[in-house]
Amino acid sequence: MRAAILAVGSELLGTDRLDTNSLKITRSLERYGVELRAKAVAGDSIEEIAAALQAALRAHDLVLVTGGLGPTADDVTREAAAAALGRGLHTDAEVLATIERRFREHGLRMPEINNRQALIVDGAEVLANRRGTAPGQRMVFEKEGGGSTLFLFPGVPVELEGLIDVYLDPWLAERSGGVGRETATLKIAGLPESAVEERVSPAYAEFGRESITILASPSDIRLRATAEGTDDERRARLAAMTSRLAELAGDAVYAFREEDTMESVVGGLLRAAGRTLTTAESCTGGLVAERLTRVPGSSDYFLGGAVTYTNDLKIKLIGVPPELIAEHGAVSEPVARAMAEGVRRALGSDFGIGITGVAGPGGGSEAKPVGTVHIALAGPAASESGGGILTDHRKIRFPGDRERVRQHSSQLALEMLRRRLLGIPLKS
Amino acid sequence: MRAAILAVGSELLGTDRLDTNSLKITRSLERYGVELRAKAVAGDSIEEIAAALQAALRAHDLVLVTGGLGPTADDVTREAAAAALGRGLHTDAEVLATIERRFREHGLRMPEINNRQALIVDGAEVLANRRGTAPGQRMVFEKEGGGSTLFLFPGVPVELEGLIDVYLDPWLAERSGGVGRETATLKIAGLPESAVEERVSPAYAEFGRESITILASPSDIRLRATAEGTDDERRARLAAMTSRLAELAGDAVYAFREEDTMESVVGGLLRAAGRTLTTAESCTGGLVAERLTRVPGSSDYFLGGAVTYTNDLKIKLIGVPPELIAEHGAVSEPVARAMAEGVRRALGSDFGIGITGVAGPGGGSEAKPVGTVHIALAGPAASESGGGILTDHRKIRFPGDRERVRQHSSQLALEMLRRRLLGIPLKS
Repeated sequence: MRAAILAVGSELLGTDRLDTNSLKITRSLERYGVELRAKAVAGDSIEEIAAALQAALRAHDLVLVTGGLGPTADDVTREAAAAALGRGLHTDAEVLATIERRFREHGLRMPEINNRQALIVDGAEVLANRRGTAPGQRMVFEKEGGGSTLFLFPGVPVELEGLIDVYLDPWLAERSGGVGRETATLKIAGLPESAVEERVSPAYAEFGRESITILASPSDIRLRATAEGTDDERRARLAAMTSRLAELAGDAVYAFREEDTMESVVGGLLRAAGRTLTTAESCTGGLVAERLTRVPGSSDYFLGGAVTYTNDLKIKLIGVPPELIAEHGAVSEPVARAMAEGVRRALGSDFGIGITGVAGPGGGSEAKPVGTVHIALAGPAASESGGGILTDHRKIRFPGDRERVRQHSSQLALEMLRRRLLGIPLKS
Repeated sequence: MRAAILAVGSELLGTDRLDTNSLKITRSLERYGVELRAKAVAGDSIEEIAAALQAALRAHDLVLVTGGLGPTADDVTREAAAAALGRGLHTDAEVLATIERRFREHGLRMPEINNRQALIVDGAEVLANRRGTAPGQRMVFEKEGGGSTLFLFPGVPVELEGLIDVYLDPWLAERSGGVGRETATLKIAGLPESAVEERVSPAYAEFGRESITILASPSDIRLRATAEGTDDERRARLAAMTSRLAELAGDAVYAFREEDTMESVVGGLLRAAGRTLTTAESCTGGLVAERLTRVPGSSDYFLGGAVTYTNDLKIKLIGVPPELIAEHGAVSEPVARAMAEGVRRALGSDFGIGITGVAGPGGGSEAKPVGTVHIALAGPAASESGGGILTDHRKIRFPGDRERVRQHSSQLALEMLRRRLLGIPLKS
């Protein structure tokens, strides 16, 4: 079954509101294995809504509409649905009585305009709305090779949710025959999108191109695997896909669930290892500390850190030797190393992270252009490499603006720590 | 001119991502008086994108597409646009050379798959993308009664923004004939939405209810005023609305432009006053420092800070007396004051901010429930109050989850500093 969603409302075509109702409907569709093929927003115009409905009903098996069922003149979804199906509208006496009773129960007389909410498309089934005045409606659009089903839902989120629970979910469950759709996510750091694509491309042939999606965001890449079938089938398939993708992508996979972040993964590893961390940040200005402390319970392993924006603070707070700064400049490998080692020693943690760079837009030079960042990690070496204290260093030139340079830098610093804690080499 | 927007990407049809790029485009359309009639999302399928494009190009004068210009196999907007217009694709040698150079500049070899990003629809104009590898494209779809214009933009927000500035806005300006629509934004901190509504309600009658909108977000309230007409008309009207709204909302207004943030406003005030700042953060974990350093040039006034997540670091790094912590607990007024005064003294700045609290979800108690935060600001008093060093303190219990408690706390700390720098009393 292929579905489309149409959100109705001119306010959804402005600069500050998005249609979020479709996400609620999408959750139900995914659960019952219905593929959402398109979504759209239309303003409060009978012609435009009707045209969008006709196109969607012809192309898809199921069309779900939210909004435009209110009492005011700009609520025209009922009229548009009738026009799209070439049918009339009638006032449903029972619906009208229910609306009037609702007002009476609140000690109010029903305003004239609410009459419109009792208009039902000829041949449609009424879906009672216990949380508001506008009922939903369900109808069938006849076309070659069967019919498409059209649901009209109110746009008020709590009313929509009620109707999804009572009418949509049971309707979908009946048609799914226990077959559903599920996704799994793998998160990857430290590789560009094209490298991830190259690595995992063998899986396209094995599992089907459409079942694997690559999503790139400023600081990481997500691989999403989708499986369909009965509960058992799709679980088995997802497990197979996940382990194959993990094998292909290798050590760069840092998380296997959408809700796991780099900071929560690194935090979990620190906790498991009984290790503590401190940070000394210059160009990232506290972003690494801020990310680490987003995680509840991070005080178990993150002691704190220093934001050493000036040379003076690098010297005072974490003991970077002034002559190092004088000789190499603040943005340099020796200073990054001294920051990582200094913060670790000064604040008494197992690991120390030091970051110094040129986030831009100012401060760049020919030798150290904007985006140049030195990251160092000091702390116990993985036991496989014989133990002892070791300081890793990476020099990177990140593309992009200040925000992206900072995001990338914080992500790479945490990735370096993740690799150290797992005994994975820095480049792999 | 009537426009439609199509966002491309299967990930936008899932349960956790929304198309937000369309909002950026909508802002430009509004500014130049172009009516947005519809928006839609299509998955990564040539057929579906092409069908959506054809329908949109027939119904509207201007169609704007975002996404699907990346290098991977699921980026098929180029192919779909060619199919919708019945044209071919060719590799543009100049575009290809630009992409290769971009990789080279970052010391990388261009992967084979990036070749696809140099594919241009026959007859389309190339819109150079200085922030990424995929250029935009502009072409005309011939139909009865003239043609429709189709823009293809990359989906990466920062790249899209660049192309809007350089190509879309000038194109729209040329066609608008000087008539447009413009909005002005006032940002307000420290007042609930209902209080803002009460204060500004006289302006509804004066300027029309529809021209003023109140938007509430986790850390502030925005007042948005909208005016239409020629350049002169709408500028005059916006100026009148802005000054009236500022008068009604009073001292709580901290910014008059969408792009001004609390951290940039406070930074500007510090720079103007020739004052410096340091921070000592516990529950906010570096968020205040991170926000301050988002602003380019913040090293002029922000020296750095300490993230003192443990009691030990509060004592070591910024000299909080251990007996204060023992007597009052780490989350207390005396400790917040000692943090603000200690960081100021230890790191040698004019102002010091200290924040300690219970961000949750754990760590709450009956006496100090989750959301309890103490914020202190130490530094020179406003000259109106006679000068000298003064430490302000606020104890707040913020509602919401960890993320909101941290956001609110950082916002209030900066608002306290803004008021101090301007000589405005803490509550007004």
